[in-house]
Amino acid sequence: MSTKSPVIIDLKFDQEEVAAALKGAFPEREVINLLHPANRNRDLSGIDYAVVWRPSADLFSRAKDLKVVFSGGAGVDHVLTLPGLPDVPLVRFVDDTLTTRMSEWIVMQCLMHLRQHQAYEALRQKRIWRELPQPEAKDITVGIMGFGVLGQDSAQKLRALGFNVIGWSKSGRKAEDFETYDEKGLDAFLGRTDFLVGLLPLTPDTRDIYNTGLFTRLSRKGPFGAPVFINGGRGGSQVEADIVASVNDGTLRGASLDVFQQEPLPLESPFWSMDKVFMTPHAAAASDVAALFRHVAHQIGRLESGKPLEHLVDRSAGY
Amino acid sequence: MSTKSPVIIDLKFDQEEVAAALKGAFPEREVINLLHPANRNRDLSGIDYAVVWRPSADLFSRAKDLKVVFSGGAGVDHVLTLPGLPDVPLVRFVDDTLTTRMSEWIVMQCLMHLRQHQAYEALRQKRIWRELPQPEAKDITVGIMGFGVLGQDSAQKLRALGFNVIGWSKSGRKAEDFETYDEKGLDAFLGRTDFLVGLLPLTPDTRDIYNTGLFTRLSRKGPFGAPVFINGGRGGSQVEADIVASVNDGTLRGASLDVFQQEPLPLESPFWSMDKVFMTPHAAAASDVAALFRHVAHQIGRLESGKPLEHLVDRSAGY
Repeated sequence: MSTKSPVIIDLKFDQEEVAAALKGAFPEREVINLLHPANRNRDLSGIDYAVVWRPSADLFSRAKDLKVVFSGGAGVDHVLTLPGLPDVPLVRFVDDTLTTRMSEWIVMQCLMHLRQHQAYEALRQKRIWRELPQPEAKDITVGIMGFGVLGQDSAQKLRALGFNVIGWSKSGRKAEDFETYDEKGLDAFLGRTDFLVGLLPLTPDTRDIYNTGLFTRLSRKGPFGAPVFINGGRGGSQVEADIVASVNDGTLRGASLDVFQQEPLPLESPFWSMDKVFMTPHAAAASDVAALFRHVAHQIGRLESGKPLEHLVDRSAGY
Repeated sequence: MSTKSPVIIDLKFDQEEVAAALKGAFPEREVINLLHPANRNRDLSGIDYAVVWRPSADLFSRAKDLKVVFSGGAGVDHVLTLPGLPDVPLVRFVDDTLTTRMSEWIVMQCLMHLRQHQAYEALRQKRIWRELPQPEAKDITVGIMGFGVLGQDSAQKLRALGFNVIGWSKSGRKAEDFETYDEKGLDAFLGRTDFLVGLLPLTPDTRDIYNTGLFTRLSRKGPFGAPVFINGGRGGSQVEADIVASVNDGTLRGASLDVFQQEPLPLESPFWSMDKVFMTPHAAAASDVAALFRHVAHQIGRLESGKPLEHLVDRSAGY
């Protein structure tokens, strides 16, 4: 029997996908999937590792000896707010797959707004053959709030398509070849931004940050005369009533939302039927579960061979 | 008065756009816009240049002394089939704007098929929150038929997004960094292609080339199990009844069409209402008319200062 610590899995993902990805994922140690009924009363003391996404409220009171907590996604807000989170390293999921998928989604949304997909669909409904005046990507400045790994990858791909791209982060994180702004530069950043892309982590500072007050500071000098809001980050950062009102009164020309204050999105949400809003069900950067387990196994391997863990969360910053 | 030859304009474009773009476009010479009623009976003899898009059938019998004909678009089929086309240089419109716009459209269509935009819209109609299994761009091979300036620009941008890209042209035109196929390699090319992008010029060889016989040779080994057809080239290259049947019977998973056998698309065409087909009204790479006139003025300037014309059409090849 292995003397290596088991790994606890508490992932509110599709369980078939989790089961498939777990096959052979941790060959040298026991896997305890907490969503399996057999593990309901399992003693979790003495276990070093847990991989979690929206974990059970009692996880940390049951697993008192955790040495590392691995988030099942890039975001960690779902873990940080949990009662009893032990003071141990918290590792985010960073992975090419997740980054690449998010960039696909961001670039697609920017192109659909640029190329007026909704307006052409509306004409098509009426069987009207009409070409619309069409700006080019180079006429649009995309401003990305949250300029870490995801933001910079999207930035590079948007630039390859011809968009102008600028970045914002609280700390004014520098990025080679891109103009970036910090907390004090927010107004200047917003004033240049035609398409606002949200990729911020959810922290006390970023909760409700995407609201009417912010939308009204975005550029209206672009070729479309009104800005677009695209959120691939966290639903808790957006005030949905403000998005609805801003789209309806023209403060925003349109929006693309992958995340929502409440998920699944309630049936009564207006977003289901707003023509000027594209939406997806938190599917922009769906983690590949197999890649998640490879990442976790790799980090555990580093730790057990005396190397430092990577992708550690800075708890004071909240991400 | 200038002794420089006037330039004839015969462009079946939006006439307001043409008028706006003509202002100051040819400062040193007279402009004769044939669509202006005052020029209906104008003597066109002795004039060197004509800029045309779907020109009047009698243009070449009226303008007998043309030294150069400029096409208003990248395609020249609308000129080559015209009776009386004089044996003078024929210059296509090549321009960054046109190339960039086409690539925007191609990348957007590839992303919408990859990211299952239609399937998500259908779920949204029913207010169903469900994430679909999602391949990545790297799981898809895009095969581009027509690997000239437009095809290679799209190829580079698709690759930046993570797609695998291969190219096909009749002559097997080589392109740095891309695998290309020629006439004899068509089956091998199709057998690897998950998303087929059509950017071929319309010639006797390419008329009706996109038909069921070709669609059935495309790869069915990709993650979606069936291929997608995206045409940004010429409507005359596609057999529309075959596209409809192939989408309906699953030979094709979906399609994106910017061009049609008859334009404007007739009201009774099934494409207006096919869920699995995205369509735009020949708007993928709308020429910027101002850019067209800059290009024409530049080429006339080259000619009149003894330099060779660029972007000449090879009439024997038909493009």
